[in-house]
Amino acid sequence: MSESFPTAPRITTGDVIGQPDFTRLPRFAAPATFAALPAPGEVSDLDVAIVGVPYDSGVSYRPGTRFGPAHIRNASKLLRPYNPEADAWPFQSQQIADFGDIGVNPYNIDEAITTIERSMRAVLERSPRLLVLGGDHSIALPTLRALHAVHGPIAVVHFDAHLDTWDTYFNTPILHGTPFRRASEEGLLDREACMHIGTRGGLYAPGDMDDDRALGFATVRCEEIEFTGLSGAIEKLKARVGQRPVYVSVDIDVLDPAFAPGTGTPESGGLTSRELLTMLRSMNSLNVVGGDIVEVSPAYDHADITGLAAAHVGYEILSAIAPAVDLSSFRTR
Amino acid sequence: MSESFPTAPRITTGDVIGQPDFTRLPRFAAPATFAALPAPGEVSDLDVAIVGVPYDSGVSYRPGTRFGPAHIRNASKLLRPYNPEADAWPFQSQQIADFGDIGVNPYNIDEAITTIERSMRAVLERSPRLLVLGGDHSIALPTLRALHAVHGPIAVVHFDAHLDTWDTYFNTPILHGTPFRRASEEGLLDREACMHIGTRGGLYAPGDMDDDRALGFATVRCEEIEFTGLSGAIEKLKARVGQRPVYVSVDIDVLDPAFAPGTGTPESGGLTSRELLTMLRSMNSLNVVGGDIVEVSPAYDHADITGLAAAHVGYEILSAIAPAVDLSSFRTR
Amino acid sequence: MSESFPTAPRITTGDVIGQPDFTRLPRFAAPATFAALPAPGEVSDLDVAIVGVPYDSGVSYRPGTRFGPAHIRNASKLLRPYNPEADAWPFQSQQIADFGDIGVNPYNIDEAITTIERSMRAVLERSPRLLVLGGDHSIALPTLRALHAVHGPIAVVHFDAHLDTWDTYFNTPILHGTPFRRASEEGLLDREACMHIGTRGGLYAPGDMDDDRALGFATVRCEEIEFTGLSGAIEKLKARVGQRPVYVSVDIDVLDPAFAPGTGTPESGGLTSRELLTMLRSMNSLNVVGGDIVEVSPAYDHADITGLAAAHVGYEILSAIAPAVDLSSFRTR
Amino acid sequence: MSESFPTAPRITTGDVIGQPDFTRLPRFAAPATFAALPAPGEVSDLDVAIVGVPYDSGVSYRPGTRFGPAHIRNASKLLRPYNPEADAWPFQSQQIADFGDIGVNPYNIDEAITTIERSMRAVLERSPRLLVLGGDHSIALPTLRALHAVHGPIAVVHFDAHLDTWDTYFNTPILHGTPFRRASEEGLLDREACMHIGTRGGLYAPGDMDDDRALGFATVRCEEIEFTGLSGAIEKLKARVGQRPVYVSVDIDVLDPAFAPGTGTPESGGLTSRELLTMLRSMNSLNVVGGDIVEVSPAYDHADITGLAAAHVGYEILSAIAPAVDLSSFRTR
Amino acid sequence: MSESFPTAPRITTGDVIGQPDFTRLPRFAAPATFAALPAPGEVSDLDVAIVGVPYDSGVSYRPGTRFGPAHIRNASKLLRPYNPEADAWPFQSQQIADFGDIGVNPYNIDEAITTIERSMRAVLERSPRLLVLGGDHSIALPTLRALHAVHGPIAVVHFDAHLDTWDTYFNTPILHGTPFRRASEEGLLDREACMHIGTRGGLYAPGDMDDDRALGFATVRCEEIEFTGLSGAIEKLKARVGQRPVYVSVDIDVLDPAFAPGTGTPESGGLTSRELLTMLRSMNSLNVVGGDIVEVSPAYDHADITGLAAAHVGYEILSAIAPAVDLSSFRTR
Amino acid sequence: MSESFPTAPRITTGDVIGQPDFTRLPRFAAPATFAALPAPGEVSDLDVAIVGVPYDSGVSYRPGTRFGPAHIRNASKLLRPYNPEADAWPFQSQQIADFGDIGVNPYNIDEAITTIERSMRAVLERSPRLLVLGGDHSIALPTLRALHAVHGPIAVVHFDAHLDTWDTYFNTPILHGTPFRRASEEGLLDREACMHIGTRGGLYAPGDMDDDRALGFATVRCEEIEFTGLSGAIEKLKARVGQRPVYVSVDIDVLDPAFAPGTGTPESGGLTSRELLTMLRSMNSLNVVGGDIVEVSPAYDHADITGLAAAHVGYEILSAIAPAVDLSSFRTR
Repeated sequence: MSESFPTAPRITTGDVIGQPDFTRLPRFAAPATFAALPAPGEVSDLDVAIVGVPYDSGVSYRPGTRFGPAHIRNASKLLRPYNPEADAWPFQSQQIADFGDIGVNPYNIDEAITTIERSMRAVLERSPRLLVLGGDHSIALPTLRALHAVHGPIAVVHFDAHLDTWDTYFNTPILHGTPFRRASEEGLLDREACMHIGTRGGLYAPGDMDDDRALGFATVRCEEIEFTGLSGAIEKLKARVGQRPVYVSVDIDVLDPAFAPGTGTPESGGLTSRELLTMLRSMNSLNVVGGDIVEVSPAYDHADITGLAAAHVGYEILSAIAPAVDLSSFRTR
Repeated sequence: MSESFPTAPRITTGDVIGQPDFTRLPRFAAPATFAALPAPGEVSDLDVAIVGVPYDSGVSYRPGTRFGPAHIRNASKLLRPYNPEADAWPFQSQQIADFGDIGVNPYNIDEAITTIERSMRAVLERSPRLLVLGGDHSIALPTLRALHAVHGPIAVVHFDAHLDTWDTYFNTPILHGTPFRRASEEGLLDREACMHIGTRGGLYAPGDMDDDRALGFATVRCEEIEFTGLSGAIEKLKARVGQRPVYVSVDIDVLDPAFAPGTGTPESGGLTSRELLTMLRSMNSLNVVGGDIVEVSPAYDHADITGLAAAHVGYEILSAIAPAVDLSSFRTR
Repeated sequence: MSESFPTAPRITTGDVIGQPDFTRLPRFAAPATFAALPAPGEVSDLDVAIVGVPYDSGVSYRPGTRFGPAHIRNASKLLRPYNPEADAWPFQSQQIADFGDIGVNPYNIDEAITTIERSMRAVLERSPRLLVLGGDHSIALPTLRALHAVHGPIAVVHFDAHLDTWDTYFNTPILHGTPFRRASEEGLLDREACMHIGTRGGLYAPGDMDDDRALGFATVRCEEIEFTGLSGAIEKLKARVGQRPVYVSVDIDVLDPAFAPGTGTPESGGLTSRELLTMLRSMNSLNVVGGDIVEVSPAYDHADITGLAAAHVGYEILSAIAPAVDLSSFRTR
Repeated sequence: MSESFPTAPRITTGDVIGQPDFTRLPRFAAPATFAALPAPGEVSDLDVAIVGVPYDSGVSYRPGTRFGPAHIRNASKLLRPYNPEADAWPFQSQQIADFGDIGVNPYNIDEAITTIERSMRAVLERSPRLLVLGGDHSIALPTLRALHAVHGPIAVVHFDAHLDTWDTYFNTPILHGTPFRRASEEGLLDREACMHIGTRGGLYAPGDMDDDRALGFATVRCEEIEFTGLSGAIEKLKARVGQRPVYVSVDIDVLDPAFAPGTGTPESGGLTSRELLTMLRSMNSLNVVGGDIVEVSPAYDHADITGLAAAHVGYEILSAIAPAVDLSSFRTR
Repeated sequence: MSESFPTAPRITTGDVIGQPDFTRLPRFAAPATFAALPAPGEVSDLDVAIVGVPYDSGVSYRPGTRFGPAHIRNASKLLRPYNPEADAWPFQSQQIADFGDIGVNPYNIDEAITTIERSMRAVLERSPRLLVLGGDHSIALPTLRALHAVHGPIAVVHFDAHLDTWDTYFNTPILHGTPFRRASEEGLLDREACMHIGTRGGLYAPGDMDDDRALGFATVRCEEIEFTGLSGAIEKLKARVGQRPVYVSVDIDVLDPAFAPGTGTPESGGLTSRELLTMLRSMNSLNVVGGDIVEVSPAYDHADITGLAAAHVGYEILSAIAPAVDLSSFRTR
Repeated sequence: MSESFPTAPRITTGDVIGQPDFTRLPRFAAPATFAALPAPGEVSDLDVAIVGVPYDSGVSYRPGTRFGPAHIRNASKLLRPYNPEADAWPFQSQQIADFGDIGVNPYNIDEAITTIERSMRAVLERSPRLLVLGGDHSIALPTLRALHAVHGPIAVVHFDAHLDTWDTYFNTPILHGTPFRRASEEGLLDREACMHIGTRGGLYAPGDMDDDRALGFATVRCEEIEFTGLSGAIEKLKARVGQRPVYVSVDIDVLDPAFAPGTGTPESGGLTSRELLTMLRSMNSLNVVGGDIVEVSPAYDHADITGLAAAHVGYEILSAIAPAVDLSSFRTR
């Protein structure tokens, strides 16, 4: 039957199995994985695993990020194999597979976090690097636990309107505003090397920032970028993390609500998507071992603009992870 | 890795592999197939194949049904195994698999129609019955060609605001307004047994209806249902088709735009979703060999109400196809 | 140049100039008049004039009906020449032209109402019958003044959730809740023959209904239709108005918000669009001299469903006005 | 200052303090309580308390009903004092106050349910009857606990697409699909007198219905209403509950998604808003001691149509509770 | 009852009563005032009064700002007590109360403007400073009249795409395009010190700008900011207004439609929300005595992004008004 | 009748007939042409013709640009006669007319392209310059063919996220991704002078860019603008095109999805509308002979923000075409 049923072949470069040949398959007929990349069963050795975590029991305002992974995947169908700004081939220079979603108990935070951690550890047995599609920001904690077990202390580069180093809320320790405090307390982070970028908006008290520094974070606030442009921020970032193993955590609310309406705790005055993507692109010389895209809440999205921004964030993170190879003699069409 | 990665097991009854166990997997973490049913590779013998056809090059007004199959699948995650009104177990009394989408050339109608027909023939080699997710109504023609080759002349039960027996438009013979004229001309239909239900709105001329009758269709117009209720329509339908092989073709615009805003040629004054689902449910004593759900255009949908109606249409068609079995001792939880 | 620029010719039957030939012009390329009908400059003698009144200074809750006329016209492009339910040729058996919009002062109610009345009188010099696209319901008063000058006392058939016979609001006499009290007081109405259909929802006091009866209105409340169906309502309507000159005034909020979200004072529990269209269709034996479609507020509409319902209302009013002729030998394609 | 700041006086009839005088205050300037009714501090003795419960930690699919109470209140500003269908004065024949929202821990189901129960008991110390604005359906359980303490065993009249008598989900006993099983198990319900209306859609197994009957519920399924109309359903309802204390629980998903898109587990083929409101209206001879409107999820609502339906549901429940008094000599304007 | 009903206590610093303690009350359960701040009856001495003016009878294109105040308040629930960029405690260093909305006659511009002025004077008897939530820009005129009576000639800092110094439109002098011409003519403005920021788009004639200068305004056009960045604009602003009493008037259409779709006369090519908020933040050394946020039209907003921007504008204006105090030893949690 | 029907007179300067007098006609009552400018029948000699091409059969992802021309016109009603940034009078210094839409066969690409070309040649017989409202980008090819016949080789200034110099897709040569390759191959372009601005996102291979250069294009990528600002891009543009005849082709997806959600192949990280409009404004010293605005897909637009941006693009292109004249003594009101 296979010759008759019109499924376009996947593009391959060497051993790497990439996207379908979209010159022969309309993109709107593509499979439902991220960027239409293979499922784990279609490939053998893996460089990067993509994992969805449809979990939003840790939110404090608008819920709905449980539908985030499907939304990001759906918006990722227009991504193409060669990234000219980064001079990278994210889908052809490394083997990626999309593992689908981790199903967790939405009514029990502790059980959910445990399940996510266990699942991430299982995935890391097959693949050394991860791109996680959230879900709310809580999921960074179990992901960092699993990555720390493999890579040791991690330098978190955290794009977000908020610090996410709060302590507890309603006496609950693991929520979307607390993952990096918990991670730092647990020794998962390299306290010399973590960084927030894009922080803005009100706080509960100035002491929030003192706590934050003690937990290991430097900060490039959003207003600073308005006055100095991106170059300064990029330099600070590179200087801080060096060649440590990096986890890039992108809360989509780092973008202004105009660029990311589909999120749960929106904060006006944010980054543009061009600023965010450019900063991510600058990380391709770093040692990125994992990343996430969280807080995409589709019920508040319009024309998928938040989903599109998130898909491009994933594209740039995968490009940053990708090894530098010259595939310029390779043409997909 | 499989024990650690939290994918809930599928429910099985005898040899039939059905939905995941949704008491252990949140529905929002389900795979992207229709009703989260298996892919072809997960099962052996098949009773019903679900096939998406993301094709809309035959539309005359609003386009966008190319995104219909994904939208219907996404809205189908809440469907449950036992249909009490029909006393049917659509997912557990017959083996279903979702084949994904047929990718066709969007720029060449003839090539597209040929590809669809060839694909449907290939699918029918594995499964005797089909549920097609459109796409625009053009796709009924190649589907009927393939079904006719297996089942002989077909009684089409056609729910639609429009007749879809027009001749040509811009000199083009295969479009979303013409599939049943072409099918009748090609001898695919049983001219004693076809039927439109829900027809309404303006025509080009009264002769449109004369042509239509000659092509083999009786008609229950929508206004008739306003005055007589559903019982009369159901009786007429059963009397007309008898035990002939039936193809149920549901253009979602048979519903009023309030129930199906997400469609391309909306017509006020239509059926309610309850009327449509009840009529479909009455068909479970008929010999349904195939069906389609077409003209779902997601860009015009709100809160997925069109997608939800379409998913329930699929549920009732699968229930009508399902054999009568007593699984009441079976409990999924 | 005319042969080269692809404007499809208009369909003509006898002297009547109708829609463009839509078998040669895509509907989405049609001119911006109602149903793509001619402008006044394209025709000579007129039977029915269509006039837009983008006025909403008389609303009490959500504004925005100033954008109603353009929205209704935009949603009217799918209307076709033959209306089978009514056996009428609304566009080919009578000469219609769309005069565009009356521009009035939005800041001065008295000036606006005067301007509308003067404009309607001017239009009536060219055409004996009118279809008005609102705008808010205030515009019925100046329209009735102009029609009364030509046709004498009018039987208003009023489809609305509300009575619109309130007295004043903020000491202002001409608003969208008062046109029929003012019209009755001014002697414009035939007090033996007016009728509300579809009334529902709360009142200020039971006396509102007493006042209303005294002003000349019988009422078929919406709940009554739930229990008795349409037949009773249609009989009452025909019995009440007889062959008097009728003005059909359709406040789109007579529909349930599911069918007409785009309106200013929505009231749950309303008519379906099928009920409304069927009742309008029953009026084709009456002497309809004018009508309006008011309270369409596009900013609250979705996928144009309110606009579509309004366009179909216009179609049925024009069909009710249309003389009975047999054009069945005429084919537009 | 009070004379200068233009706050319209409230309407009073005898001791009852009702809505503001909306002939002097635009409705869009009204306070943010339900129907602009007083806050508890503005009145002394109370007949009915309105309480919001912005809680949605018990949902299984789309979240967001935490924003339901504010949304329903916002959509309730057009409600007027006299209900002609019910011949009731819901706001003037009984003293109502809106207590605002109960704030509960969103991360701990047990604590949340306990807080809601404690709050409801406190409110019942001031007012013998309750109208609850949800929130997800979990909140019916603590509300019934509090009402049972005052009124003894309750006859629940439950409008819903679903049975809500499931057992557990992810081992969690108190969720939006389980309140009535828990309530029945706890002895809160009169098992001779409870009733579901509008049930439809798939189940997990036929046994779900057996369980349900044993828990005390009779059922009028939605399809039954399609064939028999409302009269039969109303008779069954009255016969079943008699003059027992009644709790009317309205899950807005009893409406078809066309009428209530803004909900979390939508099911096609539902009631119209006219059917629902008419059935509620029939309850004004019953002994209604409380009610709720739940599962309104604003992020999926359009033009507030779900909110409007919910507000009208509240209006009819308050009318059903209201004593029969003749205030016809009273005019608000 | 108060101990049982879960209303979180308000945060207090010295005598100042601020927001509820949001570590104990979910923000979605907060009262409906701006930033959940107290109502006037909850506090004694006042520093700043917040007043809503749901008035839009002066608009020239899209209406709907009558729903602006409620929308802005609803979007303000995420605001937190400490503003790090401004190093200000807007809610804890000064006593604020939200007075709710002024209800005015929507059908009579003169009466409405008089009522607004009288109300503002009444509010100023209790509070020396004002933050006004519009409503259309007309409301700046009566507000300036009231402020001028207290503070003398005012330096208006006006963020807007438009000049709003037009003369009349349809012979009507007080509209949303004319408040600052009227105010200047009446001597309410300090003609040495007023300023437009963000002006762009077409004019009727170059003379519009000459008139504008004569009325007392300097201008920083939007395109200028594209080339020079914010620093230049901020310097010009500070130099022009000095320590005069300042009224900050923010027409939300100063933002690009991407950042503020929900407005009535949108103009492409505008400011970003980050630019606007940064400029407002620079004003905390000025003598701000009042401000407004106008032209928010919710029916055109998506995911509340316009409302969020407006709420943050209010936050920055309140921060600019706030006295410099060190509350860093104070922690809200 | 004409004196009575309130149609405001058009503004005239010398022989030029411009917009209606919008101080006497509300803009929401304006005719449906671009900026309410005259139709061809209202004027004699023409300087610029506006032509709509509702064609989208060449798209590769989201369709719907067939509704683009009407959407852009609808969003153009707020444009005013004097453009201060450009010091231009686009509507009064040159005679413009809007020809409406070209209706073409949507099912046959070759026939459609031929029809468009023939129509454009016909229009150019009346007017030497063109502004085309798309439609998808395919339409640039037949337009360039027609312009080349009049003006010789053209310098295309192409604002777009994509190169649009791909070769074929599904073996089809004329699609929305290929017009400039075809045009270059056919010798229509001046290969020394063409330019892309705003390019970004992934490619199929680096060779795409080599091909592109060979076809005659220089490129200013979007990321470059992030770092260097607009001045550099403007200089490069002016240097490259000089005084050659220029065609400005604006694919609205050159804007970030936040500014232009309503498009078919959105790409995050794009230009702001302010950047685009400023660059267009810089072209008023060039010899612009034509331009287009393409890929506006209204079904994905919100609050018309894409339409507004497109209308302003049209305004700036018309300003760039406009001759420098001093009309400052002219006042429209």
